[in-house]
Amino acid sequence: QSIGSFKIRSGASALVNLKSEDLKNGIITASAGNFAQGLAKAASSRKIPLKVIAPKSASFAKISTLNEMGVNVQTVDFDVWWDTMITRKTQEPGYFIHPVSEISVILGNGGIGLELCEQLTDIDNIIVPFGGGGLVSGIALAARLSGFKGKIIACEIETSIPLMCAKNAGRPVKVNREPSWVDGIGSNGVLNEMWPLLDKVVDEVITITHSEAAKALRLLAQKLSIIAEGAGAVAVAAGLKSQFLGSKTVAILSGGNIDMCTFSEILLGKDTVY
Amino acid sequence: QSIGSFKIRSGASALVNLKSEDLKNGIITASAGNFAQGLAKAASSRKIPLKVIAPKSASFAKISTLNEMGVNVQTVDFDVWWDTMITRKTQEPGYFIHPVSEISVILGNGGIGLELCEQLTDIDNIIVPFGGGGLVSGIALAARLSGFKGKIIACEIETSIPLMCAKNAGRPVKVNREPSWVDGIGSNGVLNEMWPLLDKVVDEVITITHSEAAKALRLLAQKLSIIAEGAGAVAVAAGLKSQFLGSKTVAILSGGNIDMCTFSEILLGKDTVY
Repeated sequence: QSIGSFKIRSGASALVNLKSEDLKNGIITASAGNFAQGLAKAASSRKIPLKVIAPKSASFAKISTLNEMGVNVQTVDFDVWWDTMITRKTQEPGYFIHPVSEISVILGNGGIGLELCEQLTDIDNIIVPFGGGGLVSGIALAARLSGFKGKIIACEIETSIPLMCAKNAGRPVKVNREPSWVDGIGSNGVLNEMWPLLDKVVDEVITITHSEAAKALRLLAQKLSIIAEGAGAVAVAAGLKSQFLGSKTVAILSGGNIDMCTFSEILLGKDTVY
Repeated sequence: QSIGSFKIRSGASALVNLKSEDLKNGIITASAGNFAQGLAKAASSRKIPLKVIAPKSASFAKISTLNEMGVNVQTVDFDVWWDTMITRKTQEPGYFIHPVSEISVILGNGGIGLELCEQLTDIDNIIVPFGGGGLVSGIALAARLSGFKGKIIACEIETSIPLMCAKNAGRPVKVNREPSWVDGIGSNGVLNEMWPLLDKVVDEVITITHSEAAKALRLLAQKLSIIAEGAGAVAVAAGLKSQFLGSKTVAILSGGNIDMCTFSEILLGKDTVY
């Protein structure tokens, strides 16, 4: 994946049906970095100016890659950023593209589900990292349409478990989010507009610890020579649990944009939350 | 590559034409680890017992993977190991398969050249890491047969430059080899049996410093989320040199089996020879 994450699909898909009057002030999105990169790649090929609102907690690697791509990035406090995700209101002009709940974004992610079901049959479980829900819902919708009969499992990191809390409460609730090296997922709560879909398509939620995420990163590095980011590898961490032994389980490995210092420390065994 | 290096090709190819009487005492090879893994994978699927003679300098990661694959590994001093490469004589019985000069091994590597020329046209340069010469000669022979008109360039690491010395002398000469974190290439000299072929197929030799190799490793990690080993990345390091700007140059990235501690240190900028 040329931008180091799956969001190249949704970024491209988001622009497909926009009309030229939508684009007169350029486009704007709120993203921790990966969706912004996918959108930037698609926008630059169509010469559409892009502004990005990112949380200050986003990794330096992600922000600097955006800057290199010529994107105008504004960093704000995490709560302000998350408010933009809820209200879709920005101070700057531009056509707002929601990184999670835009239907074109969800459909773009669906391509993964289609490819999975084309390439594999009789899958028992598909495990997907959960950030805002765009990835898991796209994959679930496409897989079900392709005849998938197994379970759709969403994964969260222990420092932020909005979907688990929503499932338990039967509705989205406000949750805490502690900063951690797993910086691409987690939020202050499931978006209201996503809840009905998520409630329907997600069969199970698994919470991953930082120690499990770190173990998955080391395993991917040692055995497959793959660099993954924490958020990208939570589904792999879940797939290693004993409950999946003997089943045909697919774990979605969704991104590899991680600070090299953080990655080195994980490889050396320092997987403390920070 | 399931074993983390290109040697899966040559390992499989080495067994294709062996007869059952060749196999009565099992097979034996001398390898720093990667060829042994390729051979182990092919041998285990045919249930042929394999013994491996490895230099003590081989990485712990490589040796322990072999042990996990059920291979009988004997570690010896580098010079003793290299003698086995020259004499093909081992203390233990078994059909000896040479990791470099066996024609079946060279042909197995040739598959890379065939695929390259199928997938790309008008290549100006193909840059290949040089260990014993099996990889570069296989690729060169196959590429030339496929109509490749550009240059074949071999790369060595500064701590061991047998091919450069042989090219300069017009024949193989004994050279030093300092231990370093680039542990998969380098030797005490070009094998006599390989020299006529290498002299013919290699157009240019480039020496890579450890600092250049480390930079290539960091770039591959940061930009492509790929973990490479030093020996596997010397051609990428060479390809980054200004002499290749504007040309259509292919660098062969041949392996990713590196100790995670070493890799972490490289990512953190410590690229000293040790």
